[in-house]
Amino acid sequence: MPSDLHDRSIVIDGLIISDFGRPVFEDMRKGGLTAANCTCCVWENFTETMRNVMRWKAYFREHADLITQIYTTADIQAAKEAGKTGIILGWQNITGIEDQIGYLGLFKELGVGIIQMAYNTQNLVGTGCYESRDGGLSDFGHDVLGEMNRLGILADLSHVGPKTSEDVILASRQRVAYSHCLPAGLKAHPRNKSDEQLRFIAERDGFVGVTMFPPFLRRGPESTVDDYVEAIEYVLNLCGEDKVGIGTDFTQGYGQPFFDWITHDKGYGRRLTDFGEVINPEGLRTIGEWPNLTAAMERRGWPDARIERVIGGNWVALLRDVWGA
Amino acid sequence: MPSDLHDRSIVIDGLIISDFGRPVFEDMRKGGLTAANCTCCVWENFTETMRNVMRWKAYFREHADLITQIYTTADIQAAKEAGKTGIILGWQNITGIEDQIGYLGLFKELGVGIIQMAYNTQNLVGTGCYESRDGGLSDFGHDVLGEMNRLGILADLSHVGPKTSEDVILASRQRVAYSHCLPAGLKAHPRNKSDEQLRFIAERDGFVGVTMFPPFLRRGPESTVDDYVEAIEYVLNLCGEDKVGIGTDFTQGYGQPFFDWITHDKGYGRRLTDFGEVINPEGLRTIGEWPNLTAAMERRGWPDARIERVIGGNWVALLRDVWGA
Repeated sequence: MPSDLHDRSIVIDGLIISDFGRPVFEDMRKGGLTAANCTCCVWENFTETMRNVMRWKAYFREHADLITQIYTTADIQAAKEAGKTGIILGWQNITGIEDQIGYLGLFKELGVGIIQMAYNTQNLVGTGCYESRDGGLSDFGHDVLGEMNRLGILADLSHVGPKTSEDVILASRQRVAYSHCLPAGLKAHPRNKSDEQLRFIAERDGFVGVTMFPPFLRRGPESTVDDYVEAIEYVLNLCGEDKVGIGTDFTQGYGQPFFDWITHDKGYGRRLTDFGEVINPEGLRTIGEWPNLTAAMERRGWPDARIERVIGGNWVALLRDVWGA
Repeated sequence: MPSDLHDRSIVIDGLIISDFGRPVFEDMRKGGLTAANCTCCVWENFTETMRNVMRWKAYFREHADLITQIYTTADIQAAKEAGKTGIILGWQNITGIEDQIGYLGLFKELGVGIIQMAYNTQNLVGTGCYESRDGGLSDFGHDVLGEMNRLGILADLSHVGPKTSEDVILASRQRVAYSHCLPAGLKAHPRNKSDEQLRFIAERDGFVGVTMFPPFLRRGPESTVDDYVEAIEYVLNLCGEDKVGIGTDFTQGYGQPFFDWITHDKGYGRRLTDFGEVINPEGLRTIGEWPNLTAAMERRGWPDARIERVIGGNWVALLRDVWGA
């Protein structure tokens, strides 16, 4: 008889960038997700990002039987009780504010609770992980981070370059996160984080969400959900079991045009990387199979308390710390 | 000994478009304003209006000792208790949404609670009062009004043409308002409303805020606060004492460039009208003199209950009906 651990836990996916709409929302319910950080800005400017937020507001009305918007961790608890998936609006790039720090407050009020400081390449704030050099957090970036700290917006560093990441970790008055990354110790890749980097953020009370994105996993497209749990355990051993969570990076429903868009600078410029074919780990091909991840942790012999923390509890604690509620 | 009626009442100014900043906010406190509908869109597009809202959010932080943002009528009560002036963000034109109905929900969430359907000239929704013809509410305008009704945004018709106003009054599922107008029965002017128009909106449970803008008053720049009360009483006699409030239209701190901007189509186009020199009624030259208006009502022998309604109570009831809280 399968355990009911997944069903009774708060389950949080710290990064989903999928072809959002009813099929994905239905799969989130099937997967038992209590909440997910859903990307609504990658290369978009202010107006385009506002339109993305506008579309999400329509989703919240049109699919109110499946999803609900998250502003606070109390909303996450309420989503669990209502049997809905809570949507945290998040950005993978900070292009949505253009050059206006004051826009951060508008987006926070509209529900944007997580913002990545850079996506793959350099922006006004700092530098991404595929840039040939990383000059660190700009002076404007320090001002932006200060305002994010004041407002309670989580700074995400997953796609951020190593120097900019270090600068943010040191300058932030609040906890920061790699919401979705993998350890370079299992596979060398510009997107993966070294043991030193993982320890550095954890020692400063930061957080590491582990992704399953197959191009960054040790066995690539051959990976199974058990390889994913291996990677999570690797990070756990470095960072401690209260600093680690999940950020799958599900790109469900998207085809090649989407991957072309995200792997070119600003969506159209020079090619930054080539993932090849993206096949999610066996056992976790779709969001609806999320319970298999919990089951794989159980199979590996993890105690229930650790599993509950990793699949959601640690995310809730982090967000409560940063959001203040 | 002066009465304390003004001090103990909830006092609402249904329209202020001034050079906002600390001097105006200090004068609002001096004038004993509990709340005011402050214009943050006239000819601006989406981005420009968002920037205006952004600046207001900074004002709320920087001048938190004087002002506080109003989202609900409970916030108005709280402002009264805190001894601050509540700011209702309002628009005098609907250019801020450009062609996107979905933007209304974003602005409502950010605190925009009152929107005028057109300002002086034609827009995508309808036609303003200085346009040579008024074709009425467009089909898009009907859709916009429906969304405003759903969200709980008060439709303002002060600068709207007669046919568009009639269409909005008939189509709206919620109460609508002329937030700041004067009776054509005392002075003929394209901006003033006929007895028939005033009765028409009142009979359909609408609302009339009376302005003191001197170019539209019977005695023009010679007017005193008593002429203003005469005009309010004229409207009261037509509309009933539960449907009338105040919307001064204070333009405090502005000079000729501002008046040039508002009196040309889209801020730069053909001249629509020429106010000449704008001198507010004697006794009510500044926002800080607002208590003189209450005193003039008392001098005229109005019962306290009527005064309390007109200077604020009726506005609160209207906003509660439309906002739902």
